[in-house]
Amino acid sequence: MKAVRTIAELRNEIQNLKSSNEKKTVGLVPTMGYLHEGHASLIRAAKEKTDIVVVSIFVNPIQFGPAEDFETYPRDEQRDLAAAEKAGADLVFLPSVETMYPKATKTKIAVSEVTSGLCGASRPGHFDGVTTVVAKLFNIVQPDAAFFGMKDAQQVAVIQQMVYDLNFNVNIVPCPIIREEDGLALSSRNVYLSPEERKQALVLSRSLREAKEALENGQIRTAGEAKAFLTAKIMESPLADIDYVEVAAFPALTPLAEGENVLEQNGAVLMALAVKFGRTRLIDNSLLHPKGELRHV
Amino acid sequence: MKAVRTIAELRNEIQNLKSSNEKKTVGLVPTMGYLHEGHASLIRAAKEKTDIVVVSIFVNPIQFGPAEDFETYPRDEQRDLAAAEKAGADLVFLPSVETMYPKATKTKIAVSEVTSGLCGASRPGHFDGVTTVVAKLFNIVQPDAAFFGMKDAQQVAVIQQMVYDLNFNVNIVPCPIIREEDGLALSSRNVYLSPEERKQALVLSRSLREAKEALENGQIRTAGEAKAFLTAKIMESPLADIDYVEVAAFPALTPLAEGENVLEQNGAVLMALAVKFGRTRLIDNSLLHPKGELRHV
Repeated sequence: MKAVRTIAELRNEIQNLKSSNEKKTVGLVPTMGYLHEGHASLIRAAKEKTDIVVVSIFVNPIQFGPAEDFETYPRDEQRDLAAAEKAGADLVFLPSVETMYPKATKTKIAVSEVTSGLCGASRPGHFDGVTTVVAKLFNIVQPDAAFFGMKDAQQVAVIQQMVYDLNFNVNIVPCPIIREEDGLALSSRNVYLSPEERKQALVLSRSLREAKEALENGQIRTAGEAKAFLTAKIMESPLADIDYVEVAAFPALTPLAEGENVLEQNGAVLMALAVKFGRTRLIDNSLLHPKGELRHV
Repeated sequence: MKAVRTIAELRNEIQNLKSSNEKKTVGLVPTMGYLHEGHASLIRAAKEKTDIVVVSIFVNPIQFGPAEDFETYPRDEQRDLAAAEKAGADLVFLPSVETMYPKATKTKIAVSEVTSGLCGASRPGHFDGVTTVVAKLFNIVQPDAAFFGMKDAQQVAVIQQMVYDLNFNVNIVPCPIIREEDGLALSSRNVYLSPEERKQALVLSRSLREAKEALENGQIRTAGEAKAFLTAKIMESPLADIDYVEVAAFPALTPLAEGENVLEQNGAVLMALAVKFGRTRLIDNSLLHPKGELRHV
Protein backbone atom coordinates (compact mmCIF):
# COMPACT_ATOMS: atom_id res chain seq x y z
CA MET A 1 0.00 0.00 0.00
CA LYS A 2 1.16 3.48 -0.86
CA ALA A 3 0.12 6.83 0.62
CA VAL A 4 0.14 9.84 -1.70
CA ARG A 5 -0.72 13.48 -1.12
CA THR A 6 -0.83 15.15 -4.54
CA ILE A 7 -3.20 14.70 -7.46
CA ALA A 8 -0.37 14.16 -9.94
CA GLU A 9 1.19 11.44 -7.76
CA LEU A 10 -2.16 9.69 -7.33
CA ARG A 11 -2.96 9.70 -11.05
CA ASN A 12 0.54 8.43 -11.71
CA GLU A 13 0.29 5.58 -9.18
CA ILE A 14 -3.12 4.51 -10.52
CA GLN A 15 -1.67 4.50 -14.05
CA ASN A 16 1.29 2.40 -12.87
CA LEU A 17 -0.95 -0.17 -11.19
CA LYS A 18 -3.23 -0.27 -14.25
CA SER A 19 -0.40 -0.83 -16.70
CA SER A 20 1.23 -3.49 -14.53
CA ASN A 21 -1.64 -5.74 -15.50
CA GLU A 22 -4.33 -5.62 -18.15
CA LYS A 23 -7.83 -4.19 -17.71
CA LYS A 24 -7.60 -3.30 -14.08
CA THR A 25 -10.71 -1.81 -12.58
CA VAL A 26 -10.49 0.92 -9.94
CA GLY A 27 -12.62 1.15 -6.79
CA LEU A 28 -12.86 4.34 -4.74
CA VAL A 29 -13.75 4.55 -1.05
CA PRO A 30 -14.12 8.26 -0.19
CA THR A 31 -13.82 8.92 3.56
CA MET A 32 -13.15 11.71 6.01
CA GLY A 33 -10.74 9.46 7.91
CA TYR A 34 -10.79 8.33 11.53
CA LEU A 35 -11.54 4.96 10.02
CA HIS A 36 -13.70 2.40 11.82
CA GLU A 37 -15.12 -1.01 10.92
CA GLY A 38 -17.74 0.64 8.72
CA HIS A 39 -14.99 2.09 6.52
CA ALA A 40 -13.08 -1.20 6.65
CA SER A 41 -16.18 -3.01 5.34
CA LEU A 42 -16.32 -0.55 2.40
CA ILE A 43 -12.64 -1.17 1.61
CA ARG A 44 -13.18 -4.94 1.76
CA ALA A 45 -16.23 -4.64 -0.53
CA ALA A 46 -14.14 -2.58 -2.94
CA LYS A 47 -11.34 -5.15 -2.83
CA GLU A 48 -13.83 -7.87 -3.67
CA LYS A 49 -15.39 -6.03 -6.64
CA THR A 50 -12.43 -4.11 -8.12
CA ASP A 51 -8.72 -4.66 -8.74
CA ILE A 52 -7.22 -1.40 -7.50
CA VAL A 53 -8.66 0.08 -4.31
CA VAL A 54 -8.14 3.78 -3.64
CA VAL A 55 -9.15 5.16 -0.22
CA SER A 56 -9.35 8.93 0.05
CA ILE A 57 -9.05 10.58 3.45
CA PHE A 58 -10.10 14.22 3.39
CA VAL A 59 -12.08 16.24 5.90
CA ASN A 60 -13.85 18.40 3.33
CA PRO A 61 -14.32 21.92 4.68
CA ILE A 62 -17.05 22.95 2.22
CA GLN A 63 -19.51 20.32 3.49
CA PHE A 64 -19.41 21.71 7.06
CA GLY A 65 -21.61 24.60 8.15
CA PRO A 66 -20.03 27.53 10.00
CA ALA A 67 -21.34 26.26 13.37
CA GLU A 68 -20.34 22.64 12.70
CA ASP A 69 -17.37 20.54 13.76
CA PHE A 70 -14.87 20.95 10.88
CA GLU A 71 -12.05 22.06 13.18
CA THR A 72 -12.67 19.42 15.84
CA TYR A 73 -13.52 16.51 13.53
CA PRO A 74 -11.32 13.63 14.77
CA ARG A 75 -8.16 12.92 12.78
CA ASP A 76 -5.54 10.16 13.20
CA GLU A 77 -3.47 9.64 10.10
CA GLN A 78 -1.16 6.89 11.35
CA ARG A 79 -4.01 4.75 12.66
CA ASP A 80 -5.96 5.35 9.43
CA LEU A 81 -3.07 4.21 7.24
CA ALA A 82 -2.74 0.99 9.24
CA ALA A 83 -6.51 0.35 9.09
CA ALA A 84 -6.67 1.03 5.34
CA GLU A 85 -3.76 -1.32 4.68
CA LYS A 86 -5.23 -4.05 6.86
CA ALA A 87 -8.58 -3.82 5.02
CA GLY A 88 -6.87 -4.15 1.63
CA ALA A 89 -6.36 -0.65 0.21
CA ASP A 90 -3.77 -0.29 -2.56
CA LEU A 91 -3.52 3.49 -2.46
CA VAL A 92 -4.47 6.04 0.17
CA PHE A 93 -4.96 9.61 -1.01
CA LEU A 94 -4.42 12.19 1.76
CA PRO A 95 -4.69 15.60 0.10
CA SER A 96 -4.33 18.85 2.01
CA VAL A 97 -7.08 21.47 1.84
CA GLU A 98 -4.73 23.46 -0.44
CA THR A 99 -4.40 20.48 -2.79
CA MET A 100 -8.17 20.08 -3.11
CA TYR A 101 -8.94 23.82 -3.07
CA PRO A 102 -5.84 25.76 -4.21
CA LYS A 103 -8.27 28.68 -4.52
CA ALA A 104 -11.78 28.85 -3.07
CA THR A 105 -13.98 26.94 -5.51
CA LYS A 106 -16.23 29.05 -7.75
CA THR A 107 -17.95 25.89 -8.99
CA LYS A 108 -20.65 24.10 -7.03
CA ILE A 109 -22.71 21.06 -7.88
CA ALA A 110 -26.21 21.21 -6.45
CA VAL A 111 -28.77 18.40 -6.45
CA SER A 112 -32.35 19.52 -5.83
CA GLU A 113 -35.35 17.62 -4.36
CA VAL A 114 -33.37 14.64 -2.97
CA THR A 115 -31.50 17.15 -0.76
CA SER A 116 -34.51 19.12 0.48
CA GLY A 117 -35.47 17.00 3.51
CA LEU A 118 -33.68 15.08 6.28
CA CYS A 119 -30.03 16.17 6.74
CA GLY A 120 -30.37 18.54 3.77
CA ALA A 121 -32.92 20.57 5.71
CA SER A 122 -30.87 20.62 8.94
CA ARG A 123 -27.53 21.27 7.24
CA PRO A 124 -28.02 23.87 4.47
CA GLY A 125 -25.29 23.66 1.81
CA HIS A 126 -23.98 20.37 3.22
CA PHE A 127 -24.86 18.25 0.20
CA ASP A 128 -23.55 20.85 -2.30
CA GLY A 129 -20.22 20.40 -0.51
CA VAL A 130 -20.54 16.62 -0.67
CA THR A 131 -21.45 16.41 -4.36
CA THR A 132 -18.77 18.94 -5.30
CA VAL A 133 -15.98 17.08 -3.51
CA VAL A 134 -17.19 13.67 -4.68
CA ALA A 135 -17.24 14.92 -8.30
CA LYS A 136 -13.68 16.19 -7.81
CA LEU A 137 -12.61 12.79 -6.43
CA PHE A 138 -14.35 11.00 -9.32
CA ASN A 139 -12.46 13.20 -11.79
CA ILE A 140 -9.15 12.71 -9.99
CA VAL A 141 -9.42 8.93 -9.51
CA GLN A 142 -11.71 8.04 -12.46
CA PRO A 143 -12.96 4.95 -10.63
CA ASP A 144 -15.15 2.22 -12.11
CA ALA A 145 -17.02 1.86 -8.82
CA ALA A 146 -17.35 3.91 -5.63
CA PHE A 147 -18.42 2.53 -2.25
CA PHE A 148 -20.60 4.37 0.28
CA GLY A 149 -22.10 3.30 3.58
CA MET A 150 -25.86 3.26 3.97
CA LYS A 151 -25.63 5.00 7.36
CA ASP A 152 -25.62 8.18 5.26
CA ALA A 153 -28.57 6.95 3.20
CA GLN A 154 -29.37 10.43 1.92
CA GLN A 155 -25.76 10.85 0.79
CA VAL A 156 -26.08 7.61 -1.20
CA ALA A 157 -29.31 8.86 -2.80
CA VAL A 158 -27.84 12.29 -3.61
CA ILE A 159 -24.68 10.85 -5.16
CA GLN A 160 -26.65 8.32 -7.19
CA GLN A 161 -28.77 11.23 -8.48
CA MET A 162 -25.66 13.23 -9.42
CA VAL A 163 -24.10 10.24 -11.17
CA TYR A 164 -27.34 9.63 -13.11
CA ASP A 165 -27.82 13.28 -14.07
CA LEU A 166 -24.19 14.04 -15.00
CA ASN A 167 -23.50 10.66 -16.67
CA PHE A 168 -20.53 9.83 -14.46
CA ASN A 169 -19.26 6.44 -15.62
CA VAL A 170 -19.07 5.18 -12.03
CA ASN A 171 -21.03 2.36 -10.42
CA ILE A 172 -22.26 3.49 -6.97
CA VAL A 173 -22.21 0.58 -4.52
CA PRO A 174 -24.16 1.17 -1.29
CA CYS A 175 -22.93 -1.00 1.59
CA PRO A 176 -24.82 -2.05 4.75
CA ILE A 177 -24.59 -0.12 8.02
CA ILE A 178 -22.02 -1.62 10.40
CA ARG A 179 -23.02 -1.60 14.08
CA GLU A 180 -21.41 -2.19 17.46
CA GLU A 181 -22.56 -5.41 19.13
CA ASP A 182 -25.07 -3.42 21.16
CA GLY A 183 -26.56 -1.87 18.01
CA LEU A 184 -24.96 1.59 17.83
CA ALA A 185 -24.20 2.47 14.21
CA LEU A 186 -20.47 3.07 13.76
CA SER A 187 -19.55 6.72 13.24
CA SER A 188 -16.34 8.68 13.59
CA ARG A 189 -18.39 11.10 15.69
CA ASN A 190 -19.19 8.43 18.34
CA VAL A 191 -15.87 9.37 19.93
CA TYR A 192 -17.45 12.67 21.02
CA LEU A 193 -20.00 10.88 23.26
CA SER A 194 -19.69 10.81 27.06
CA PRO A 195 -20.26 7.36 28.62
CA GLU A 196 -23.83 8.31 29.57
CA GLU A 197 -24.58 9.76 26.10
CA ARG A 198 -23.08 6.63 24.50
CA LYS A 199 -25.46 4.49 26.57
CA GLN A 200 -28.53 6.57 25.77
CA ALA A 201 -27.62 6.74 22.05
CA LEU A 202 -28.60 3.07 21.82
CA VAL A 203 -32.17 4.33 21.62
CA LEU A 204 -31.60 5.11 17.92
CA SER A 205 -30.98 1.58 16.71
CA ARG A 206 -33.42 0.14 19.25
CA SER A 207 -36.29 2.41 18.22
CA LEU A 208 -35.67 1.66 14.51
CA ARG A 209 -35.61 -2.09 15.20
CA GLU A 210 -38.77 -1.94 17.29
CA ALA A 211 -40.57 0.25 14.73
CA LYS A 212 -39.73 -2.25 12.01
CA GLU A 213 -41.11 -5.09 14.17
CA ALA A 214 -44.23 -3.08 15.01
CA LEU A 215 -44.82 -2.47 11.28
CA GLU A 216 -44.23 -6.10 10.41
CA ASN A 217 -46.57 -7.46 13.09
CA GLY A 218 -49.28 -4.91 12.22
CA GLN A 219 -49.15 -3.00 15.52
CA ILE A 220 -48.59 0.19 13.47
CA ARG A 221 -49.19 0.72 9.76
CA THR A 222 -48.98 4.32 8.57
CA ALA A 223 -46.05 6.71 8.18
CA GLY A 224 -47.60 8.97 10.82
CA GLU A 225 -47.84 6.06 13.25
CA ALA A 226 -44.25 5.05 12.53
CA LYS A 227 -42.99 8.58 13.16
CA ALA A 228 -45.00 8.86 16.39
CA PHE A 229 -43.73 5.45 17.49
CA LEU A 230 -40.09 6.39 16.82
CA THR A 231 -40.46 9.82 18.43
CA ALA A 232 -42.00 8.37 21.60
CA LYS A 233 -39.30 5.71 21.91
CA ILE A 234 -36.47 8.23 21.41
CA MET A 235 -37.96 10.64 23.94
CA GLU A 236 -37.68 7.94 26.59
CA SER A 237 -33.96 8.86 26.62
CA PRO A 238 -33.74 12.15 28.51
CA LEU A 239 -30.50 13.24 26.76
CA ALA A 240 -31.95 12.73 23.26
CA ASP A 241 -32.69 15.97 21.38
CA ILE A 242 -34.49 15.08 18.13
CA ASP A 243 -33.41 16.88 14.95
CA TYR A 244 -35.72 14.89 12.67
CA VAL A 245 -37.67 11.64 12.46
CA GLU A 246 -38.74 10.93 8.88
CA VAL A 247 -40.33 8.19 6.81
CA ALA A 248 -39.63 8.67 3.10
CA ALA A 249 -39.55 6.81 -0.20
CA PHE A 250 -36.03 5.69 -1.11
CA PRO A 251 -34.07 6.82 -3.07
CA ALA A 252 -36.31 9.77 -4.09
CA LEU A 253 -36.61 10.77 -0.39
CA THR A 254 -40.05 12.28 -0.82
CA PRO A 255 -41.70 11.97 2.64
CA LEU A 256 -44.66 9.63 2.91
CA ALA A 257 -47.93 11.35 3.83
CA GLU A 258 -49.09 10.75 7.43
CA GLY A 259 -51.81 8.30 6.40
CA GLU A 260 -49.80 6.25 3.89
CA ASN A 261 -49.26 2.58 4.64
CA VAL A 262 -45.50 2.09 5.06
CA LEU A 263 -45.21 -1.52 3.98
CA GLU A 264 -47.54 -1.24 1.00
CA GLN A 265 -45.42 1.19 -1.02
CA ASN A 266 -44.22 0.15 -4.47
CA GLY A 267 -40.59 0.87 -3.66
CA ALA A 268 -38.27 0.89 -0.68
CA VAL A 269 -39.03 3.09 2.34
CA LEU A 270 -36.45 4.71 4.59
CA MET A 271 -37.06 5.40 8.28
CA ALA A 272 -34.40 7.96 9.16
CA LEU A 273 -33.40 9.74 12.36
CA ALA A 274 -31.06 12.52 13.39
CA VAL A 275 -30.75 13.06 17.12
CA LYS A 276 -28.38 15.15 19.19
CA PHE A 277 -26.83 13.89 22.41
CA GLY A 278 -25.14 16.84 24.03
CA ARG A 279 -23.22 18.51 21.19
CA THR A 280 -23.00 15.32 19.13
CA ARG A 281 -25.46 14.84 16.28
CA LEU A 282 -25.96 11.18 15.33
CA ILE A 283 -27.88 9.69 12.42
CA ASP A 284 -29.28 6.22 11.86
CA ASN A 285 -31.83 4.64 9.56
CA SER A 286 -33.58 1.47 8.51
CA LEU A 287 -34.44 0.61 4.93
CA LEU A 288 -37.68 -1.32 4.44
CA HIS A 289 -37.94 -3.27 1.22
CA PRO A 290 -41.32 -3.82 -0.36
CA LYS A 291 -42.48 -7.41 -0.46
CA GLY A 292 -41.00 -9.36 -3.33
CA GLU A 293 -38.33 -6.77 -4.21
CA LEU A 294 -34.79 -8.04 -4.39
CA ARG A 295 -32.64 -6.47 -1.72
CA HIS A 296 -29.88 -4.57 -3.49
CA VAL A 297 -28.31 -2.80 -0.55
CA MET B 1 -16.98 8.76 -39.93
CA LYS B 2 -19.81 7.28 -37.93
CA ALA B 3 -22.92 8.97 -36.54
CA VAL B 4 -24.31 7.61 -33.27
CA ARG B 5 -27.31 8.62 -31.19
CA THR B 6 -27.04 6.77 -27.88
CA ILE B 7 -24.54 7.06 -25.04
CA ALA B 8 -23.82 3.32 -25.01
CA GLU B 9 -23.11 3.31 -28.76
CA LEU B 10 -20.81 6.32 -28.46
CA ARG B 11 -18.81 4.86 -25.56
CA ASN B 12 -18.58 1.62 -27.50
CA GLU B 13 -17.34 3.27 -30.71
CA ILE B 14 -14.75 5.33 -28.81
CA GLN B 15 -13.53 2.14 -27.12
CA ASN B 16 -13.31 0.40 -30.49
CA LEU B 17 -11.27 3.21 -32.02
CA LYS B 18 -9.01 3.34 -28.96
CA SER B 19 -8.31 -0.38 -28.93
CA SER B 20 -7.67 -0.47 -32.69
CA ASN B 21 -4.42 1.34 -31.96
CA GLU B 22 -2.46 2.04 -28.82
CA LYS B 23 -2.76 5.13 -26.63
CA LYS B 24 -5.24 7.06 -28.71
CA THR B 25 -6.17 10.48 -27.41
CA VAL B 26 -9.72 11.76 -27.77
CA GLY B 27 -10.71 15.30 -28.76
CA LEU B 28 -14.23 16.64 -28.22
CA VAL B 29 -15.87 19.47 -30.16
CA PRO B 30 -19.21 20.23 -28.46
CA THR B 31 -21.62 22.10 -30.76
CA MET B 32 -25.30 22.92 -31.13
CA GLY B 33 -25.08 22.03 -34.84
CA TYR B 34 -25.86 24.14 -37.90
CA LEU B 35 -22.12 23.94 -38.43
CA HIS B 36 -20.19 26.75 -40.08
CA GLU B 37 -16.51 27.44 -40.76
CA GLY B 38 -16.01 28.32 -37.07
CA HIS B 39 -17.02 24.80 -36.07
CA ALA B 40 -14.97 23.33 -38.93
CA SER B 41 -11.90 25.16 -37.62
CA LEU B 42 -12.48 23.58 -34.18
CA ILE B 43 -12.77 20.12 -35.73
CA ARG B 44 -9.57 20.68 -37.72
CA ALA B 45 -7.77 21.89 -34.56
CA ALA B 46 -8.99 18.76 -32.73
CA LYS B 47 -7.81 16.56 -35.59
CA GLU B 48 -4.39 18.15 -35.40
CA LYS B 49 -4.01 17.71 -31.63
CA THR B 50 -5.84 14.43 -30.91
CA ASP B 51 -6.26 11.03 -32.55
CA ILE B 52 -10.01 10.47 -32.27
CA VAL B 53 -12.27 13.46 -32.91
CA VAL B 54 -15.80 13.39 -31.50
CA VAL B 55 -18.23 16.14 -32.54
CA SER B 56 -21.39 16.44 -30.49
CA ILE B 57 -24.44 18.11 -31.98
CA PHE B 58 -27.07 18.90 -29.38
CA VAL B 59 -29.29 21.93 -29.00
CA ASN B 60 -29.29 21.92 -25.22
CA PRO B 61 -32.70 23.04 -23.89
CA ILE B 62 -31.49 23.89 -20.37
CA GLN B 63 -29.17 26.65 -21.57
CA PHE B 64 -32.02 28.58 -23.21
CA GLY B 65 -34.22 30.98 -21.28
CA PRO B 66 -38.02 30.71 -21.62
CA ALA B 67 -38.13 33.71 -23.99
CA GLU B 68 -35.17 32.54 -26.06
CA ASP B 69 -34.88 30.71 -29.38
CA PHE B 70 -34.64 27.02 -28.37
CA GLU B 71 -37.54 26.01 -30.62
CA THR B 72 -36.44 28.04 -33.63
CA TYR B 73 -32.67 27.44 -33.31
CA PRO B 74 -31.58 26.37 -36.83
CA ARG B 75 -31.06 22.64 -37.38
CA ASP B 76 -29.82 20.75 -40.46
CA GLU B 77 -28.57 17.29 -39.63
CA GLN B 78 -27.64 16.13 -43.14
CA ARG B 79 -25.58 19.22 -43.89
CA ASP B 80 -23.93 18.99 -40.44
CA LEU B 81 -22.88 15.38 -40.98
CA ALA B 82 -21.28 16.27 -44.32
CA ALA B 83 -19.50 19.29 -42.79
CA ALA B 84 -18.22 17.29 -39.80
CA GLU B 85 -16.91 14.54 -42.07
CA LYS B 86 -15.21 17.01 -44.39
CA ALA B 87 -13.47 18.72 -41.45
CA GLY B 88 -12.14 15.38 -40.16
CA ALA B 89 -14.52 14.13 -37.44
CA ASP B 90 -14.34 10.43 -36.59
CA LEU B 91 -17.58 10.25 -34.63
CA VAL B 92 -20.62 12.51 -34.52
CA PHE B 93 -22.83 12.20 -31.46
CA LEU B 94 -26.43 13.31 -32.11
CA PRO B 95 -28.37 12.57 -28.94
CA SER B 96 -32.06 13.33 -28.56
CA VAL B 97 -33.27 15.48 -25.65
CA GLU B 98 -34.56 12.22 -24.10
CA THR B 99 -31.11 10.65 -24.35
CA MET B 100 -29.45 13.57 -22.58
CA TYR B 101 -32.31 14.19 -20.13
CA PRO B 102 -34.35 10.99 -19.72
CA LYS B 103 -35.82 12.79 -16.70
CA ALA B 104 -35.54 16.50 -15.92
CA THR B 105 -32.11 16.94 -14.34
CA LYS B 106 -32.09 17.51 -10.58
CA THR B 107 -28.35 18.25 -10.71
CA LYS B 108 -26.95 21.59 -11.79
CA ILE B 109 -23.39 22.83 -11.96
CA ALA B 110 -23.09 26.53 -11.19
CA VAL B 111 -19.97 28.67 -11.58
CA SER B 112 -20.05 31.95 -9.68
CA GLU B 113 -18.23 35.27 -10.34
CA VAL B 114 -17.06 34.44 -13.90
CA THR B 115 -20.75 34.13 -14.84
CA SER B 116 -22.02 37.29 -13.16
CA GLY B 117 -21.39 39.82 -15.94
CA LEU B 118 -21.69 39.95 -19.74
CA CYS B 119 -23.95 37.19 -21.14
CA GLY B 120 -24.41 35.76 -17.64
CA ALA B 121 -26.19 38.95 -16.58
CA SER B 122 -28.39 39.10 -19.71
CA ARG B 123 -29.18 35.38 -19.76
CA PRO B 124 -29.85 34.18 -16.19
CA GLY B 125 -29.28 30.43 -15.81
CA HIS B 126 -27.66 30.18 -19.25
CA PHE B 127 -24.21 29.21 -18.00
CA ASP B 128 -25.58 26.69 -15.47
CA GLY B 129 -27.13 24.97 -18.48
CA VAL B 130 -23.84 25.17 -20.39
CA THR B 131 -21.62 23.83 -17.57
CA THR B 132 -24.12 21.07 -16.77
CA VAL B 133 -24.32 19.80 -20.35
CA VAL B 134 -20.56 20.16 -20.92
CA ALA B 135 -19.87 18.14 -17.74
CA LYS B 136 -22.28 15.47 -19.04
CA LEU B 137 -20.48 15.40 -22.39
CA PHE B 138 -17.09 15.21 -20.64
CA ASN B 139 -18.32 12.23 -18.61
CA ILE B 140 -19.82 10.54 -21.66
CA VAL B 141 -16.86 11.06 -24.01
CA GLN B 142 -14.00 11.28 -21.44
CA PRO B 143 -11.92 13.37 -23.84
CA ASP B 144 -8.29 14.36 -23.36
CA ALA B 145 -8.96 17.76 -24.90
CA ALA B 146 -12.04 19.83 -25.76
CA PHE B 147 -12.15 22.66 -28.29
CA PHE B 148 -14.18 25.86 -27.93
CA GLY B 149 -14.39 28.98 -30.08
CA MET B 150 -13.36 32.30 -28.57
CA LYS B 151 -16.44 34.02 -30.00
CA ASP B 152 -18.08 32.78 -26.78
CA ALA B 153 -15.16 34.06 -24.70
CA GLN B 154 -17.17 33.97 -21.47
CA GLN B 155 -18.12 30.34 -22.17
CA VAL B 156 -14.42 29.49 -22.52
CA ALA B 157 -13.66 31.23 -19.20
CA VAL B 158 -16.56 29.55 -17.41
CA ILE B 159 -15.65 26.09 -18.68
CA GLN B 160 -11.99 26.57 -17.79
CA GLN B 161 -13.10 27.56 -14.29
CA MET B 162 -15.29 24.44 -13.98
CA VAL B 163 -12.49 22.19 -15.22
CA TYR B 164 -10.07 23.76 -12.75
CA ASP B 165 -12.46 23.59 -9.78
CA LEU B 166 -13.79 20.08 -10.45
CA ASN B 167 -10.45 18.56 -11.56
CA PHE B 168 -11.74 17.39 -14.92
CA ASN B 169 -8.81 15.72 -16.65
CA VAL B 170 -9.52 17.61 -19.89
CA ASN B 171 -7.34 20.16 -21.66
CA ILE B 172 -9.52 23.11 -22.75
CA VAL B 173 -8.29 24.49 -26.08
CA PRO B 174 -9.69 27.92 -27.00
CA CYS B 175 -9.65 28.57 -30.76
CA PRO B 176 -9.68 31.93 -32.60
CA ILE B 177 -12.89 33.57 -33.82
CA ILE B 178 -13.58 32.83 -37.48
CA ARG B 179 -15.05 35.74 -39.50
CA GLU B 180 -16.65 36.33 -42.86
CA GLU B 181 -14.44 38.26 -45.27
CA ASP B 182 -16.25 41.46 -44.33
CA GLY B 183 -15.54 40.86 -40.62
CA LEU B 184 -18.83 39.43 -39.29
CA ALA B 185 -18.06 36.74 -36.71
CA LEU B 186 -19.52 33.42 -37.82
CA SER B 187 -22.57 32.33 -35.84
CA SER B 188 -25.37 29.86 -36.47
CA ARG B 189 -27.70 32.71 -35.56
CA ASN B 190 -26.50 34.91 -38.48
CA VAL B 191 -29.07 33.05 -40.58
CA TYR B 192 -31.81 34.95 -38.71
CA LEU B 193 -30.60 38.33 -40.03
CA SER B 194 -32.43 40.24 -42.78
CA PRO B 195 -30.14 41.61 -45.54
CA GLU B 196 -30.25 45.09 -43.95
CA GLU B 197 -29.57 43.72 -40.43
CA ARG B 198 -26.72 41.62 -41.83
CA LYS B 199 -25.19 44.77 -43.34
CA GLN B 200 -25.55 46.83 -40.17
CA ALA B 201 -24.22 43.97 -37.99
CA LEU B 202 -20.77 44.68 -39.45
CA VAL B 203 -20.61 47.50 -36.92
CA LEU B 204 -19.67 44.93 -34.24
CA SER B 205 -16.38 43.76 -35.70
CA ARG B 206 -15.62 47.21 -37.11
CA SER B 207 -16.10 48.97 -33.76
CA LEU B 208 -13.92 46.38 -31.97
CA ARG B 209 -11.18 46.75 -34.60
CA GLU B 210 -11.31 50.54 -34.44
CA ALA B 211 -11.33 50.56 -30.61
CA LYS B 212 -8.24 48.35 -30.60
CA GLU B 213 -6.51 50.73 -33.03
CA ALA B 214 -7.58 53.76 -30.97
CA LEU B 215 -6.13 52.13 -27.83
CA GLU B 216 -2.92 51.19 -29.60
CA ASN B 217 -2.34 54.63 -31.06
CA GLY B 218 -3.16 56.33 -27.76
CA GLN B 219 -6.33 58.09 -28.98
CA ILE B 220 -8.15 56.45 -26.04
CA ARG B 221 -6.64 54.81 -22.93
CA THR B 222 -9.12 53.94 -20.18
CA ALA B 223 -11.82 51.29 -19.95
CA GLY B 224 -14.44 54.05 -19.71
CA GLU B 225 -13.13 55.64 -22.90
CA ALA B 226 -13.07 52.29 -24.67
CA LYS B 227 -16.68 51.57 -23.70
CA ALA B 228 -17.80 55.04 -24.76
CA PHE B 229 -15.91 54.67 -28.05
CA LEU B 230 -17.51 51.28 -28.77
CA THR B 231 -20.97 52.46 -27.74
CA ALA B 232 -20.80 55.56 -29.97
CA LYS B 233 -19.61 53.52 -32.96
CA ILE B 234 -22.33 50.91 -32.54
CA MET B 235 -25.05 53.52 -32.18
CA GLU B 236 -24.18 54.82 -35.64
CA SER B 237 -26.11 51.77 -36.87
CA PRO B 238 -29.79 52.62 -36.39
CA LEU B 239 -30.87 48.94 -36.12
CA ALA B 240 -28.35 48.16 -33.35
CA ASP B 241 -29.89 47.69 -29.89
CA ILE B 242 -27.06 47.34 -27.36
CA ASP B 243 -27.38 44.62 -24.70
CA TYR B 244 -23.92 45.25 -23.21
CA VAL B 245 -20.53 46.77 -23.98
CA GLU B 246 -17.92 45.63 -21.47
CA VAL B 247 -14.18 45.78 -20.88
CA ALA B 248 -13.05 43.09 -18.42
CA ALA B 249 -9.99 41.16 -17.29
CA PHE B 250 -9.73 37.76 -18.98
CA PRO B 251 -10.36 35.03 -17.93
CA ALA B 252 -11.61 36.28 -14.51
CA LEU B 253 -14.08 38.60 -16.31
CA THR B 254 -14.02 41.21 -13.54
CA PRO B 255 -14.91 44.51 -15.28
CA LEU B 256 -12.17 47.13 -15.40
CA ALA B 257 -12.99 50.31 -13.50
CA GLU B 258 -13.82 53.30 -15.72
CA GLY B 259 -10.46 54.99 -15.13
CA GLU B 260 -8.22 51.95 -15.54
CA ASN B 261 -5.72 51.96 -18.37
CA VAL B 262 -6.72 49.13 -20.72
CA LEU B 263 -3.32 48.28 -22.20
CA GLU B 264 -1.42 48.52 -18.92
CA GLN B 265 -3.12 45.61 -17.17
CA ASN B 266 -1.02 42.67 -15.98
CA GLY B 267 -3.17 40.13 -17.81
CA ALA B 268 -5.29 39.91 -20.92
CA VAL B 269 -8.29 42.22 -21.36
CA LEU B 270 -11.49 41.36 -23.20
CA MET B 271 -13.62 43.95 -24.98
CA ALA B 272 -16.98 42.24 -25.40
CA LEU B 273 -20.28 43.20 -27.00
CA ALA B 274 -23.79 41.84 -27.22
CA VAL B 275 -26.10 43.69 -29.59
CA LYS B 276 -29.54 42.89 -30.92
CA PHE B 277 -30.51 43.46 -34.54
CA GLY B 278 -34.26 42.95 -34.74
CA ARG B 279 -34.87 39.74 -32.77
CA THR B 280 -31.35 38.43 -33.29
CA ARG B 281 -28.82 38.85 -30.49
CA LEU B 282 -25.22 38.76 -31.70
CA ILE B 283 -22.01 38.69 -29.67
CA ASP B 284 -18.45 39.57 -30.61
CA ASN B 285 -15.24 40.38 -28.76
CA SER B 286 -11.60 41.25 -29.02
CA LEU B 287 -8.92 39.95 -26.68
CA LEU B 288 -6.09 42.37 -25.93
CA HIS B 289 -2.88 40.78 -24.74
CA PRO B 290 -0.61 42.67 -22.40
CA LYS B 291 2.74 43.65 -23.82
CA GLY B 292 5.23 40.82 -23.76
CA GLU B 293 2.71 38.08 -22.93
CA LEU B 294 2.71 35.09 -25.21
CA ARG B 295 -0.54 34.81 -27.14
CA HIS B 296 -2.14 31.53 -26.17
CA VAL B 297 -5.51 31.91 -27.88
